[in-house]
Amino acid sequence: MIAEIITIGDEILIGQVVDTNSAWLGEQLNLHGVEIVKITSISDKHKQIIDALLSAESHADLVLITGGLGPTKDDITKKVLCDYFECGMVMNEDVLRHVIDMLSRRNVVINELNKEQALVPEACTVLHNPNGTAPGMWFEKNDTIFVSMPGVPFEMKEITLNEILPRLQQTERTKSIYHQTVLTYGVPESMLAEKIEAWEKILPDFIKLAYLPNQLMVRLRLSAYGDDETFLKAEVDKQIEKLKTVIPEDIFGFNGSSLSKVTGDLLIKYGKTLSIAESCTGGKIAHFFTSNAGSSAYFRGSIVAYANEVKENQLGVEPEALEKHGAVSKEVAIEMALGVKNALGTDYAISTTGIAGPDGGTDEKPVGTVWIAVAGQQKVYAKRYNFAHNRERNILRSTQAAINFLRKVILKENTHEN
Amino acid sequence: MIAEIITIGDEILIGQVVDTNSAWLGEQLNLHGVEIVKITSISDKHKQIIDALLSAESHADLVLITGGLGPTKDDITKKVLCDYFECGMVMNEDVLRHVIDMLSRRNVVINELNKEQALVPEACTVLHNPNGTAPGMWFEKNDTIFVSMPGVPFEMKEITLNEILPRLQQTERTKSIYHQTVLTYGVPESMLAEKIEAWEKILPDFIKLAYLPNQLMVRLRLSAYGDDETFLKAEVDKQIEKLKTVIPEDIFGFNGSSLSKVTGDLLIKYGKTLSIAESCTGGKIAHFFTSNAGSSAYFRGSIVAYANEVKENQLGVEPEALEKHGAVSKEVAIEMALGVKNALGTDYAISTTGIAGPDGGTDEKPVGTVWIAVAGQQKVYAKRYNFAHNRERNILRSTQAAINFLRKVILKENTHEN
Repeated sequence: MIAEIITIGDEILIGQVVDTNSAWLGEQLNLHGVEIVKITSISDKHKQIIDALLSAESHADLVLITGGLGPTKDDITKKVLCDYFECGMVMNEDVLRHVIDMLSRRNVVINELNKEQALVPEACTVLHNPNGTAPGMWFEKNDTIFVSMPGVPFEMKEITLNEILPRLQQTERTKSIYHQTVLTYGVPESMLAEKIEAWEKILPDFIKLAYLPNQLMVRLRLSAYGDDETFLKAEVDKQIEKLKTVIPEDIFGFNGSSLSKVTGDLLIKYGKTLSIAESCTGGKIAHFFTSNAGSSAYFRGSIVAYANEVKENQLGVEPEALEKHGAVSKEVAIEMALGVKNALGTDYAISTTGIAGPDGGTDEKPVGTVWIAVAGQQKVYAKRYNFAHNRERNILRSTQAAINFLRKVILKENTHEN
Repeated sequence: MIAEIITIGDEILIGQVVDTNSAWLGEQLNLHGVEIVKITSISDKHKQIIDALLSAESHADLVLITGGLGPTKDDITKKVLCDYFECGMVMNEDVLRHVIDMLSRRNVVINELNKEQALVPEACTVLHNPNGTAPGMWFEKNDTIFVSMPGVPFEMKEITLNEILPRLQQTERTKSIYHQTVLTYGVPESMLAEKIEAWEKILPDFIKLAYLPNQLMVRLRLSAYGDDETFLKAEVDKQIEKLKTVIPEDIFGFNGSSLSKVTGDLLIKYGKTLSIAESCTGGKIAHFFTSNAGSSAYFRGSIVAYANEVKENQLGVEPEALEKHGAVSKEVAIEMALGVKNALGTDYAISTTGIAGPDGGTDEKPVGTVWIAVAGQQKVYAKRYNFAHNRERNILRSTQAAINFLRKVILKENTHEN
């Protein structure tokens, strides 16, 4: 199946918004054996939308359209679709009920513009949008399927996962596909490729390997294509078992997991609790852990200590340590970790202290210098990192490094113990 | 001047890479009065590239092409350009010298593939690429300019800034564009559209309005097109002044700012400090503030109190308040805000306590129920919110609401005082 994506909206063309929707759709469809051959971004103009639809129809079996479905008058996609499919607009009672229900739960007084969200082209099948007022719309013309969705990412994703992919699976079932993604952390893509070269070289032909790097996190996706799903699954799983013996230290999880989820699950498994003392990461580590449902089972709290007085008063860092070694030092990192572990009474604690930038760097401690400590149940560990990026990157890298550091300490202490 | 962007490479189509180049180019060109009408992403296939070039030539004065210029055999852009412009390839001595120089500085032994980087289509003017081995290439055909660049962002950016934009400025400038973006918070898109309907209706024809919503944050972008930039600027600024009188409460900033940046700037302006006590937001408020460079001028710290014991011990919340009213209550929110304000000795404090979900909701306090308190210099304010979303959204909404709440209290207390 050949697909094209059309994104509608000036905000992408003038660079105010980066088109992350298309990348996400490309990945999802790819996983389901659909090949994207073209992505087109155009503005909310009648002729441009019609031209894009005509061009897509001539090449593709599936055309995914995002954007231009808001209630305001600069959004014209729905009207253009009526023209394209030569039909009128009808009020859909289900959508209307959903719009009213959704807005009243949020105490929004419903107006005419909201009600118009429930007007849909007669020619379409409505796809439920649980997260918003504009429904997805599914059209078929000759041999091409067209689906129009809102451009808001979390609305688009839900409609794709709940409505579009299951429908596509029903229409096309020629080939089986089986995917597994191995999550690695800490090794840059090119080095990882070298480490697994011998393993990669003898992968069977029907298994494709893709590197999906994001900073020091590299996802390795194995996709097997064939007729017999049971066979594909067994073969992929076998290859992953082999890979585990090649890079046992670098793999932290599988598929849609994350460093904080895997680490939190370890804490739950071993019945341990966690507290955090953050300086340069400014709350991001706590935010990552608490993004996971169920984190209250192990996470007790974090003290974000930006000011030195907070390090002293809330974490018990000695003023002498701050004066002698500076806030960004091994000694202070260790005192912070022990301080928060003690104050909050937890089994484990993480601390970070560093120079996120853009200011505050020195020759000895340039921007990106970060000390991270992990207080385990048996001892305290500390490491110096040099990220040398911009502020945003330095904070993200520090956060990932700190969580991975904790993960390794938990594994070390608990697998030695048992 | 009308432009199109063509990006070449499978990695965008399968979602391995998010196309940030186009957004950057869109923004840069827009600032220089060039209007991007279309962005097309295609794979490295001869026919697709030719089709995209033909289509672009029929609409655009300028076609920017990125990607497909690497030394490996899957990159075919240069060969296709030769076919398109009906010319052969020649060795460019300047480029060859640059390639040899660059690789020898990196201690790379030069091979045939590297040398071929210096082969360029006869029909092009070479644009120097200081950061890589593949040069930019400038073509003119009939009335259309075509520029091909590598897809590596920092190579593409340098060529655009040093070579393309100066050349475009020398060619005739037909139209000016002037943009301003007004940032609003707290009013959903449809309600905002109603509030500003009368203002929007009488906007001059040459000013286009776009709504760019992201949850309760709606950006209103005014774009003016015409010949006289001074006039456009004056007209847009006049319309914004009018808009300020229509929705004075809803506007919090302009252009690339954010709620946390604007609020932090207010704290700096009035010389005040901030501390935070977070339960359901789990560190995200602190993370938002500390993402801004210079936040240490006002931000002292945050106590993320997930466990009740942390609320009691670190924030001084009374056990009776927790028992009588529950952790998610006005009373506890107020005690948390006052507790952190006192413990960290700040002028202002925010607190959040709520049910982020997916579990923990009750009939009386369903998932998404959040109490937020702001301790000001004069009094404490508290509000109940009902977000009724998933965990991620509830945390984000709470964070935005808390920061906006603080912003309003700071404005109230400090503009009354002065």
